[in-house]
Amino acid sequence: MNRILNHPDRMVEDMLIGFLAAHNGSVVATGNPRVLKSIYAGAPGRVGIVSGGGSGHEPAFLGYLGRHLLDAVAVGEVFSSPSAKSFADAFAAADGGAGVVCLYGNYAGDNMNVKMAMRLAEQAGVRVEAVVANDDVPSAPAQERERRRGVAGEILMWKVAAAHAAQGGSLEQVADAARQAIAHTRSMGIGLSACTIPAAGKANFHISDGQMEVGIGHHGEPGVQVLPTASARQMAELMLETLLADLPLQQGDRVALLLSGMGATPLMEQYILYGELSAQLQVRGIQVDRPLVGNYFTALEMMGASVTLMKLTPELAAGLDHPCQSPAWTVGALPC
Amino acid sequence: MNRILNHPDRMVEDMLIGFLAAHNGSVVATGNPRVLKSIYAGAPGRVGIVSGGGSGHEPAFLGYLGRHLLDAVAVGEVFSSPSAKSFADAFAAADGGAGVVCLYGNYAGDNMNVKMAMRLAEQAGVRVEAVVANDDVPSAPAQERERRRGVAGEILMWKVAAAHAAQGGSLEQVADAARQAIAHTRSMGIGLSACTIPAAGKANFHISDGQMEVGIGHHGEPGVQVLPTASARQMAELMLETLLADLPLQQGDRVALLLSGMGATPLMEQYILYGELSAQLQVRGIQVDRPLVGNYFTALEMMGASVTLMKLTPELAAGLDHPCQSPAWTVGALPC
Repeated sequence: MNRILNHPDRMVEDMLIGFLAAHNGSVVATGNPRVLKSIYAGAPGRVGIVSGGGSGHEPAFLGYLGRHLLDAVAVGEVFSSPSAKSFADAFAAADGGAGVVCLYGNYAGDNMNVKMAMRLAEQAGVRVEAVVANDDVPSAPAQERERRRGVAGEILMWKVAAAHAAQGGSLEQVADAARQAIAHTRSMGIGLSACTIPAAGKANFHISDGQMEVGIGHHGEPGVQVLPTASARQMAELMLETLLADLPLQQGDRVALLLSGMGATPLMEQYILYGELSAQLQVRGIQVDRPLVGNYFTALEMMGASVTLMKLTPELAAGLDHPCQSPAWTVGALPC
Repeated sequence: MNRILNHPDRMVEDMLIGFLAAHNGSVVATGNPRVLKSIYAGAPGRVGIVSGGGSGHEPAFLGYLGRHLLDAVAVGEVFSSPSAKSFADAFAAADGGAGVVCLYGNYAGDNMNVKMAMRLAEQAGVRVEAVVANDDVPSAPAQERERRRGVAGEILMWKVAAAHAAQGGSLEQVADAARQAIAHTRSMGIGLSACTIPAAGKANFHISDGQMEVGIGHHGEPGVQVLPTASARQMAELMLETLLADLPLQQGDRVALLLSGMGATPLMEQYILYGELSAQLQVRGIQVDRPLVGNYFTALEMMGASVTLMKLTPELAAGLDHPCQSPAWTVGALPC
């Protein structure tokens, strides 16, 4: 393990110092050191958008704080849920009187803490609706979708919900937009190397050189099978077969495609995989309308990639196209 | 080696297919498969901006194709210079009659091919001025700056030059802006792990666990010393000492700071290092005005980071603030 840090137990704290220093024009601290908010948070009458989760997935979650995207984020330790108190403080930071949606990933710790935080918020008079992302197909069968993990598809859910909030949607409308977004979204990942939490000092899982873990989770959760490392073309086939079995698409359908590197995968290789996915979708008569390629949701220095498909309706496409600005993702044309 | 590819010898070709598919609204192919251009390239009367270099540094170079940034890019094999023909074709693609600046990094192969390409361009009636980036401090002493390598500082040079071109600068003015930009810019890198060119199958250099290579180049060129891996704070001290010895700054000076991960360094750790750099500059009374943190210029899956400082004049600051839009870097506020 050869890493950039001061002390393994102080990584999150030190990261937040650097993040705030780098983005001090758009993101600010709050009274809770584990809650950051956008300078646009708490706009009166607008529904607030909150997310949060363990650290080590950067730019998720804090890199999406910004205009027409996340208002406040609860920050956990590396690969650990934020506390209920932090989620509750994030709700308070994001509330502008119209309520808050909490859009987060389906993990036991996050579920428990969000639930507790919602009780705290209720006592404080802040209305909160939670929508949990469960886009990770290999993590449970379709008939048990409520057991599936949330992975990079979360980002598309934030975007669509934030667009609705920016356009004046009510709490119910924004939450419903988030539900629609995640219902149309499926993801899966392939891992090529393990990652090490510096405080642990060694990886808690293993991937052999020459093998790939198909369906790996963002914390190294085991996938559905271990196979010899395939070509980019075969990886794309395998991923699309799995995703499309779960999210049937027909010729003429349009999708958003988010390919995220897991941390150590060169962007060159992400584009190679994207090229294969794009070509294979085209053969099936499916058009990729909103491609995103890059390190959008990572797992420390894991090698591998996740692929997320969102079946586009006109409403979802409009949500993705709505302008936003954040450190990790900006949408919108420049003024001429 | 466990990577995402179809064939090690076809990586660049496959990457370009994916890149064009992902960014087909803003980047287009040309008659030369190793030259891509922005849809804004060749605007009549505007000076064109060209860069290029070996692949494996993504998002450099092609990720900076866009509006008010690079017009055309010549693409080399992994860690190898593009051909003279590709540079010449990039000049032709970028020319709108007002000439072209070629802004590239100081490497033997690139120097030779750019020089040959400029002769080809002259025969074709395209005026070209070349400005070579030599921002990498540890690669040669100050009195031999012409021997220094070009690294991530190149990106800031592109930005400033492109802003001048967008604002109607003449070929001489744009080239002079580029020279001013790189003259005010210094970089250095620290490597924490080697990288492997897939076609070679193994790394051509080695970094031991627990050691860091101070002053490493973007292709694993040896640095100035190998030290036990220091804390983020000590890394920041070492980097600032080296950079500021070469680029003297006084209390009250303002700088742009670009921290780029080398490929496999988690963004979390990049922010930790940024926090230390920012705090130490503040102690010295130097203000960071334009921070950039992320994988802006990489070296496949190398672990480590490079730090680039640009001493800001009002002209350089204005150049960096000028709006631009590209896959890798967008500057500019959203329309309200």
